[in-house]
Amino acid sequence: MRPRYIYITLLLLLVLIPAGYYYVDWSKGGMGAGLYSHQWQPESGQQYWYPDAFYKSVDSMSGEFTGEQCVQCHSSVTPGIVNDWRKSGHAKVAADGSQVFCSDCHGNNHQNLKMPTPDVCAKCHSQQHADFQDEKRYGFPSHALAMERAVDAKHFVDKPKAEVTSCIQCHSVATKCDSCHTRHRFSAAEARRPEACITCHSGPPHPDDATYFASAHGKLYQKEGASWDWSKPLKKGNYPAPTCAYCHMGEGKHQVADKSIWKFGIRQINPLSSGNVVKREKWVKLCSDCHEADWSRQQLRGMDAERKQAWGKLYKAEGILKSPRSDNLLSPAAGERPPYPNDWVDARWPRARIGFFEGQASAFYNVSPIERDYFEMWYFDNLGAYKGAAHGAANFVTKGHQNMDRALIDIEAEAVRLRNLGEAERAYLGDRYDPNKLWLSGEYTELNREQN
Amino acid sequence: MRPRYIYITLLLLLVLIPAGYYYVDWSKGGMGAGLYSHQWQPESGQQYWYPDAFYKSVDSMSGEFTGEQCVQCHSSVTPGIVNDWRKSGHAKVAADGSQVFCSDCHGNNHQNLKMPTPDVCAKCHSQQHADFQDEKRYGFPSHALAMERAVDAKHFVDKPKAEVTSCIQCHSVATKCDSCHTRHRFSAAEARRPEACITCHSGPPHPDDATYFASAHGKLYQKEGASWDWSKPLKKGNYPAPTCAYCHMGEGKHQVADKSIWKFGIRQINPLSSGNVVKREKWVKLCSDCHEADWSRQQLRGMDAERKQAWGKLYKAEGILKSPRSDNLLSPAAGERPPYPNDWVDARWPRARIGFFEGQASAFYNVSPIERDYFEMWYFDNLGAYKGAAHGAANFVTKGHQNMDRALIDIEAEAVRLRNLGEAERAYLGDRYDPNKLWLSGEYTELNREQN
Amino acid sequence: MRPRYIYITLLLLLVLIPAGYYYVDWSKGGMGAGLYSHQWQPESGQQYWYPDAFYKSVDSMSGEFTGEQCVQCHSSVTPGIVNDWRKSGHAKVAADGSQVFCSDCHGNNHQNLKMPTPDVCAKCHSQQHADFQDEKRYGFPSHALAMERAVDAKHFVDKPKAEVTSCIQCHSVATKCDSCHTRHRFSAAEARRPEACITCHSGPPHPDDATYFASAHGKLYQKEGASWDWSKPLKKGNYPAPTCAYCHMGEGKHQVADKSIWKFGIRQINPLSSGNVVKREKWVKLCSDCHEADWSRQQLRGMDAERKQAWGKLYKAEGILKSPRSDNLLSPAAGERPPYPNDWVDARWPRARIGFFEGQASAFYNVSPIERDYFEMWYFDNLGAYKGAAHGAANFVTKGHQNMDRALIDIEAEAVRLRNLGEAERAYLGDRYDPNKLWLSGEYTELNREQN
Repeated sequence: MRPRYIYITLLLLLVLIPAGYYYVDWSKGGMGAGLYSHQWQPESGQQYWYPDAFYKSVDSMSGEFTGEQCVQCHSSVTPGIVNDWRKSGHAKVAADGSQVFCSDCHGNNHQNLKMPTPDVCAKCHSQQHADFQDEKRYGFPSHALAMERAVDAKHFVDKPKAEVTSCIQCHSVATKCDSCHTRHRFSAAEARRPEACITCHSGPPHPDDATYFASAHGKLYQKEGASWDWSKPLKKGNYPAPTCAYCHMGEGKHQVADKSIWKFGIRQINPLSSGNVVKREKWVKLCSDCHEADWSRQQLRGMDAERKQAWGKLYKAEGILKSPRSDNLLSPAAGERPPYPNDWVDARWPRARIGFFEGQASAFYNVSPIERDYFEMWYFDNLGAYKGAAHGAANFVTKGHQNMDRALIDIEAEAVRLRNLGEAERAYLGDRYDPNKLWLSGEYTELNREQN
Repeated sequence: MRPRYIYITLLLLLVLIPAGYYYVDWSKGGMGAGLYSHQWQPESGQQYWYPDAFYKSVDSMSGEFTGEQCVQCHSSVTPGIVNDWRKSGHAKVAADGSQVFCSDCHGNNHQNLKMPTPDVCAKCHSQQHADFQDEKRYGFPSHALAMERAVDAKHFVDKPKAEVTSCIQCHSVATKCDSCHTRHRFSAAEARRPEACITCHSGPPHPDDATYFASAHGKLYQKEGASWDWSKPLKKGNYPAPTCAYCHMGEGKHQVADKSIWKFGIRQINPLSSGNVVKREKWVKLCSDCHEADWSRQQLRGMDAERKQAWGKLYKAEGILKSPRSDNLLSPAAGERPPYPNDWVDARWPRARIGFFEGQASAFYNVSPIERDYFEMWYFDNLGAYKGAAHGAANFVTKGHQNMDRALIDIEAEAVRLRNLGEAERAYLGDRYDPNKLWLSGEYTELNREQN
Repeated sequence: MRPRYIYITLLLLLVLIPAGYYYVDWSKGGMGAGLYSHQWQPESGQQYWYPDAFYKSVDSMSGEFTGEQCVQCHSSVTPGIVNDWRKSGHAKVAADGSQVFCSDCHGNNHQNLKMPTPDVCAKCHSQQHADFQDEKRYGFPSHALAMERAVDAKHFVDKPKAEVTSCIQCHSVATKCDSCHTRHRFSAAEARRPEACITCHSGPPHPDDATYFASAHGKLYQKEGASWDWSKPLKKGNYPAPTCAYCHMGEGKHQVADKSIWKFGIRQINPLSSGNVVKREKWVKLCSDCHEADWSRQQLRGMDAERKQAWGKLYKAEGILKSPRSDNLLSPAAGERPPYPNDWVDARWPRARIGFFEGQASAFYNVSPIERDYFEMWYFDNLGAYKGAAHGAANFVTKGHQNMDRALIDIEAEAVRLRNLGEAERAYLGDRYDPNKLWLSGEYTELNREQN
């Protein structure tokens, strides 16, 4: 290479690297948060879900108050939360006479109140916070990255705010601690119960609630959980049946990512990779609190088999979809869908997409029924079957696979129809054939921008 | 106007007004109840749901008995309900030595027993009864009008009795008090719990149960409700989390209609009308028992946004449907559906209908798939999303809007198919084209009448 | 008949009858179990579900141990199950100083442990076991025949093992007792609660859980069941509301088949046959523990009406399906589906099938959408409506019939489409028309055999 090019390259790097840093910095500096912060504004509800970014103190009262004064006044204004606090560990008088008062977390100045972030809790609960942050090592999905990855997703700004608001409610687990330990008791006993988890871990793509409650473990909890002693730590011998936290947060460890093998059913993994063999043995050890080790290993092999079966079905469906796609039989086709406001690449160079990883956002909206059938097979039936297998809910495995079989029936029939009829229709109708007029407008191009 | 016409008009009015009164009177005088009382007969189960109209005493025992005698004998015959009564406030001995015995509500004559109506309960519980009746001011939907409006609906007589029986079970809330306070404890504590409400408030178009239980409020109830003191009144500070009754029947007021803003999601309303602004402030005051007023206002604005989004989708679907309808591409078309027995207007002058208000009954049955898709989008997905937003169940908002998006995909694709293919088919098949033969008979014309 | 033929017939019988016996004997002698035992091998999980056939002792420990020694060591190894045992009746010291130890059921030799079968439990609980076995008189469905009939079904070997594993989990109720009395407390109190039953009795075709919990009975249980005294026997006056076991296993009788009238909704029955009249009176007697006899009779008549209505809809759908079938408009047609590995008769002489009894296995897989719609209408909507009616869940009756109406809409429209379009397509496309290529391979012919 001639010296001239070296100089040019170096010069370019000198300009581009700072420019890149500057751009990312700028892009995060808008009214919203994350990479697209200039494209949306927070609504006031978000200050509770992402207080570090958005909380603004109420200013209805002025003055500085001691903790005792907070309690005195709020005993009449909001007696419920004061009652909660009184029952909490925070209200217990320590050996040195101290208590954790409202003001210790919210501050004393009533016109400059703080909404506690995990860092505030970490002042006393440092081990839990460190464990929680440690999840970041394992990437996403993880609790610790839940908010960041949500607001950095293109579809967070593409979709109407009224809809993504519901996402943020659960993703706020990353940015506040009372998702599991509800305010103002912040009780460990409460967080040990499955309901603490399933407020978020529910719904079609991850029916953790339904599959746990359908399992023998969950049935024992439902029968007798009301009389178990939830003040006990999550250790061998302390509970007649496991709960979410017993298996996923054993001994109270605030890090749930280090035993994850099948990745929520989202990716096909090699279940016997060296890393996964290590994780399997962690599961076997845990299950052995109650079960024979051999039985536990068999359950894990059962999950491998279920996953193999599921992926076989998904690949078959994907294979069927490729032919109508390449023959341009899908309607709306790529380029005929209203582009997502934020997706200027796709607006200029549209391309057809199949499945989840090829284009998550596109799979929900503005696709043809056959594509959507595959998406639902993938996202609801496949993931539901996985959760059923993982939590010992035989019924959900049956139902998930039944639904996948149904989806295959519909996808196969629709592909046949698209092929045969597409040909007949086009030949007959000639110029009059136009499947796409209806699609050229849509909620993304018309309805949303003014609302974001 | 010439005097002659005035006389004729007056004469006609003199005849027609009494005739109208007579007709309505006559029409309510049949074996059944309501406007179509001549077209159906009650089955014996209805005497329990609508005792005022239909209860007939058992005659297996004769004689007159005192309350003590009732209790003595029924302690062996039906010990369960006597146990319940013993635990009830009715069994408590008052200062004057009196108790409320079986006979006080059912009468003494065993061959002329009464099944208590709300009026019977009102003899002691007059305030609750007055509040309950006051709902009528707000029209329907309301508890107090539930039975009347059910039996006055055309489809109540058009549909097979085996099906509408299930409607009446819940609508009987208007005509007896033990829908919420189950017999024979009639416990206020029981009626404060969400299960008292969700026996009826459940199911696809109004998943009040599922959305409450999926919310943070509901999770707290599920975790700890078994140990709450349900004898306390529904007042600020008495409960760690709200239940149905806490928010909708605060302080035990038996009237739930006066805070209703979005009308169950059934109608698009102006959320900022003067009346609704007043109602919003009632909600804010209520939420402020625990939450900041500002946060509460934001939640209500979130509901406005969700509703706007939902109606945008519904209107889009309705717009798409209008074109195949006006081009007569729907099959069965109006006039090709078997007429509802009771709907002689539609039998003579059939017209196509879209959506809920244009024809509730028709949307369930004997319509083409595209119309039914819209109906389900409207009735299940839209209303489910609304309930999710109203009760703080983020998952249900997501799911409802996902389903509406799916419905739009199917409706759009089907409309394209109907347009292109309809043309191709008709041209090719000519006289042989006949989409409707299968529809000319149906359950309403053949199966039902003899059973009603 | 000439003597010669008599001799030949006798000779053939002499050969064929022993050959038949020999064949059945041989066919049950493979690695698996049941009629197709040579075609599959058990995975190790099955030893817990069908211990009599498959259990193999762990061999990680050697030596013979007394019961006290088992308890001593397992108090640290698996403290949870020892805790359970300590709370069980087995741990109670009897008058003669004896206890039921681990070794009494599992044996003393740690390398030759036994997994207890119902026969082991019957050594002490003979009445319960005798009642349970008595169900066999009533055929299938019944608990006692659940495992046998499962492994004898063709689709048990035809389907991938990963899928049928989930079936066996529940069908193991026949071959072990801890499906209801979970180990190691084996508590009668536990088994009286609905959760004991609904671990299995749940899911779309038999939503016993959802329908019970949606009923007034279930709501009472959910409200207050946590405080009921479950140690009481299931007798009149002992419980404020009935549970599964109260009605189906009154006074603890381990036989649930002798009051079965409507056969799970699977068959249309004559509800007033002499046998069913006897069964009805058993129900009326049971319901009369709390309700008026007359009211109970009406409820049963209501179920008759619901069933009549449901079968009317199913027959209508079946009627519609017959025409496209006889005109060979279904795709894939019989003979174009990949044959089930085990169904060599169908592979040679394929025939179209409609509905459940004409071909259970075929209805799930490799059928055209219209056939599958009917199957789902039959299997999910019809059976769900039935369970709703049976358990007093009005909502489920409404939903089931709504879904059946929806299915009729789709089936009717699809039948019209198949007829008109089938003709148009074939005429236009001529030789190019080929709806079936995609179907000639399938999971049964390719994926499964190596895994069974």
